[in-house]
Amino acid sequence: MIVLLTDFGHSEYVGVMKAVIFNCYKTGNIVDLCHNISPQNLIEASWILSNNYHYFPEGVVFCCVVDPGVGTPRKAIAVRTVKYYFVGPDNGLLWETLKEQRIIAVRTLNIPKDASQTFHGRDVFAIAAAKIAMGRFEMVGAENCEDIVKLELFHSGNEGIIVRIDMFGNIITNIPFQEKDSYHVKIGPREMEMKFYSNYASAPENQLFLIEGSNKTLEISLKNDNAHKVLPALHQNGTGPVQIGQRVIIS
Amino acid sequence: MIVLLTDFGHSEYVGVMKAVIFNCYKTGNIVDLCHNISPQNLIEASWILSNNYHYFPEGVVFCCVVDPGVGTPRKAIAVRTVKYYFVGPDNGLLWETLKEQRIIAVRTLNIPKDASQTFHGRDVFAIAAAKIAMGRFEMVGAENCEDIVKLELFHSGNEGIIVRIDMFGNIITNIPFQEKDSYHVKIGPREMEMKFYSNYASAPENQLFLIEGSNKTLEISLKNDNAHKVLPALHQNGTGPVQIGQRVIIS
Amino acid sequence: MIVLLTDFGHSEYVGVMKAVIFNCYKTGNIVDLCHNISPQNLIEASWILSNNYHYFPEGVVFCCVVDPGVGTPRKAIAVRTVKYYFVGPDNGLLWETLKEQRIIAVRTLNIPKDASQTFHGRDVFAIAAAKIAMGRFEMVGAENCEDIVKLELFHSGNEGIIVRIDMFGNIITNIPFQEKDSYHVKIGPREMEMKFYSNYASAPENQLFLIEGSNKTLEISLKNDNAHKVLPALHQNGTGPVQIGQRVIIS
Repeated sequence: MIVLLTDFGHSEYVGVMKAVIFNCYKTGNIVDLCHNISPQNLIEASWILSNNYHYFPEGVVFCCVVDPGVGTPRKAIAVRTVKYYFVGPDNGLLWETLKEQRIIAVRTLNIPKDASQTFHGRDVFAIAAAKIAMGRFEMVGAENCEDIVKLELFHSGNEGIIVRIDMFGNIITNIPFQEKDSYHVKIGPREMEMKFYSNYASAPENQLFLIEGSNKTLEISLKNDNAHKVLPALHQNGTGPVQIGQRVIIS
Repeated sequence: MIVLLTDFGHSEYVGVMKAVIFNCYKTGNIVDLCHNISPQNLIEASWILSNNYHYFPEGVVFCCVVDPGVGTPRKAIAVRTVKYYFVGPDNGLLWETLKEQRIIAVRTLNIPKDASQTFHGRDVFAIAAAKIAMGRFEMVGAENCEDIVKLELFHSGNEGIIVRIDMFGNIITNIPFQEKDSYHVKIGPREMEMKFYSNYASAPENQLFLIEGSNKTLEISLKNDNAHKVLPALHQNGTGPVQIGQRVIIS
Repeated sequence: MIVLLTDFGHSEYVGVMKAVIFNCYKTGNIVDLCHNISPQNLIEASWILSNNYHYFPEGVVFCCVVDPGVGTPRKAIAVRTVKYYFVGPDNGLLWETLKEQRIIAVRTLNIPKDASQTFHGRDVFAIAAAKIAMGRFEMVGAENCEDIVKLELFHSGNEGIIVRIDMFGNIITNIPFQEKDSYHVKIGPREMEMKFYSNYASAPENQLFLIEGSNKTLEISLKNDNAHKVLPALHQNGTGPVQIGQRVIIS
């Protein structure tokens, strides 16, 4: 099984990657983890992968393409861990996911001379993922003994960052939930008091609140509405919408 | 085969549900019916499910997650009918679909103690759907002899509601088509005369018209344009865009 | 394998087509090539199909539904070429793809009397695609000896058209890449000088540039930003955003 994670949205780029995979891995199963990563956003991609890969069955090949450096000499890699395989650009995207697993082998992917300079998803990563799913991990390229590029998502105690804004408008942080009734929230110049509710239905309307998200971290939410869109209007001492990567203190 | 219907849009939440399903139902087939239900909109979800479930093959398990009450004591249920299985929150979403079928059994889903309070799609519904697809309907929880929550989509003669706004901007009602050349349409304070055309190409541009939609009800449409976006500008005695659930009279 | 290409976006219309297909072609594999074609845009659909069909394995059935003439007497066709099958309305969508292949047979699809006048994707094309995938090409309708409707995407030397705007905001033309450091670009009343970069990372920020896209034609791009959204602000002698189908000269 191959799992795709990209910032290609609803474009044909995803369909074309599947075409290339099925050309080689004919009886395969391809699952879309997520394609609506904000364009080029490594933090968001890293968060989604590291929190969700372990729900997939053992042996899965994750093919991850968020790749602002496509066409430059950045490396493309394949990594084998005890339970999974990962394919993607060596730009930090895989780091948070790999650091908690035992790595068995790393390969540097061959980049064909006629590969597009803008679409390695099709010409490099899809081909490598298909080969690995067919049992040919050793054939994707030479062994790589160098360190993998690190991208740590900052987190220390009650300080962290915004890691994801979901389609309901929930603003997701990487700060772990602690049992408290109310919190002081600081995002850049904005400071806000927010109550905690254990589920959406218990919260009052028209009032930003904190909830424990499905990855056990704190999320800023708004009942039957979109916290991300409404926050700037409620807290005008900020400058427009909050953004992925922004520092947050929740105390 | 498991069919998914959610309001999760293009988020990773759909991919994670598939991960959980494939962990159990390894050789399964998962089909996306629709994920762009307006957030928490039970009317829209109910309309789409009740009009489309019968196109799927016998034996399919529908896993439906539009769940504003997640984390509250609302029940989660699995229903077996003569031809299909349905899994979802007991909040009315399933009612219009179930009322036209013979129900054989209903079970109340077990909710694990460590289930997230915000994502039963992953921790409750995906697991139940996978078990049912594996032939273990009886193992999802205890028998449920209480009535299922009802949500009837209002319709009486030429009065009904807006049930869906599709991605072309067609405003879909639940009022059955009748053969007439022109209609009087009333939506809230707005009153409009509209002609009927049997296909898009026959209609003139820049003029809202009625057409028989693919579920045999009346839709408000605009040739080569988006009726939903344009309607407020054409009929200013309204208050912004029309909304799902709003009353409509077409006579 | 059946591949879907439509302008249905994220609506349930795609899921319903899959339901109809699986009712007949039970063990089938359905792949989404792309559903976010701009509504009714035959140029964009034609470009995406003609540039990408050849990545799919031999024998694939392409089911293509961008169909502004649905419900009119326009024909619906199935085409067998040496390597593939194509199903869709006979409105030009298939022309650019078919003209480079050897056509073996063409059939006119039967349109059932009770087919919806607005959704042949479900009632005509999905059924035909499933039959063909089951090996019954001859059963979809009578032989068609007439010419297929032509829609050529204009291109002559350094003149062409905008054929696609992708989700990163890249403005894709059908003008082939030539090795040059800088170009003069003319789109309607707008005239601009643009440099060429071989990859995104080499380009400076805040400056529109040209790049060779993954189909070997010139694209207008903007590093870490959306060229399509920004172009009108940078070049105000135009009239709003550029559009698919617009003439372009790049010299």
